Amino acid sequence: MDVVRAEDAGAAAGTGERRPKRMPRAVRERQMLDAAVRIFGRRGYRAASMDEIAELAGVSKPLVYLYLNSKESLFTACIRREAQALAEAVREGVDPALPADRRLWEGLRAFFTHTAEHPDGWAILHRHARTRGEPSAAEVAALREGITAFVTELIQAAAREAHGGPGPAEREVAGLAQALVGAAESLAAWANTDGSVAANEAAATLMNFAWAGLGNLMAGHRWSPAER
Amino acid sequence: MDVVRAEDAGAAAGTGERRPKRMPRAVRERQMLDAAVRIFGRRGYRAASMDEIAELAGVSKPLVYLYLNSKESLFTACIRREAQALAEAVREGVDPALPADRRLWEGLRAFFTHTAEHPDGWAILHRHARTRGEPSAAEVAALREGITAFVTELIQAAAREAHGGPGPAEREVAGLAQALVGAAESLAAWANTDGSVAANEAAATLMNFAWAGLGNLMAGHRWSPAER
Repeated sequence: MDVVRAEDAGAAAGTGERRPKRMPRAVRERQMLDAAVRIFGRRGYRAASMDEIAELAGVSKPLVYLYLNSKESLFTACIRREAQALAEAVREGVDPALPADRRLWEGLRAFFTHTAEHPDGWAILHRHARTRGEPSAAEVAALREGITAFVTELIQAAAREAHGGPGPAEREVAGLAQALVGAAESLAAWANTDGSVAANEAAATLMNFAWAGLGNLMAGHRWSPAER
Repeated sequence: MDVVRAEDAGAAAGTGERRPKRMPRAVRERQMLDAAVRIFGRRGYRAASMDEIAELAGVSKPLVYLYLNSKESLFTACIRREAQALAEAVREGVDPALPADRRLWEGLRAFFTHTAEHPDGWAILHRHARTRGEPSAAEVAALREGITAFVTELIQAAAREAHGGPGPAEREVAGLAQALVGAAESLAAWANTDGSVAANEAAATLMNFAWAGLGNLMAGHRWSPAER
């Protein structure tokens, strides 16, 4: 494996003279991660080549190793960044002052918008990360737990807001959250594969499925933001 | 790789005399696949050892290679067998004469019962198969397509049976089927990890989620087989 130290990495271009402003490390690292997400997302871990990632990032391969250490840790860094970005997008998309069904709707829209806009990141999280064992799997498991906790809280809030009867038991809420998260994962993968399904459409399908239920849908009774 | 021909495989025990009834090939192969499903399911593909599989099956390692050719093709054979068994269990669990919601309920019960009773097979299909690329991924994709087609047909039947209004568009039905299949996969994995969730309970949670919807559940209106 090619690993160089900081001095070596800069030496190729240098002649002892002072070079005109070096790019900050954070910017360079971001470029490398952008390139890596794209290549890993499209090729998967094994088929992705460090040469291609370096070329797409416009840097030398030794510099990628210098910054990110190894292919494995570059992959883990991609997973962590994409997982945080997705979790943040969902959190920021939701107005906590709204009732639970509206928050779910906003959360779903934020989720499907983000996965549609970042198909390579989503492919890494949903498909490729599981194939690598630890530490990749642990990063994705943490993301999934965070989103499941968010959904669990939403369902509990919905139960508190409902006046019609006893809410579901804690154990059932846990199962419902698992069902909703699995449904969202599956739909996002399908929408990105199909290509013609817009984020809002996917979100509306899942909102109707999850909130109104098939029984109502079949009778033409849909969930609507205005109904409350 | 150790590969032996048929004569060699039997030779270890033989002395030229006629051996008392050889075990039929189908029976032996089944024993090997049983052992392989257990080991692959618990350890994953990479960590599984052919020695351990042969030992658990009570045969020599060369015989496993003779029958199943390679670790890769043994794994593919496991996936195919477990996928067929799961698809069959769901199909056989459903009475086609019943209305759509009852058929969905029976299908879900059959699905969760089978995955609970075959946790190693389910782990192979849901977790390990994706990590190997082709041909494993293709086998699982075929299973998933079969189950999605079954669910799509159920939703279309439900729409035909409903008298309340226009059913969902074909495109939405496809999305709903994806959501339902993803929810079932996620719940089955969760139930098998948790260990304390019974198959009937998981099926009831998903039936209520999918048919009644969260909105009704929160108000205490559940789906019930008797209601129709």
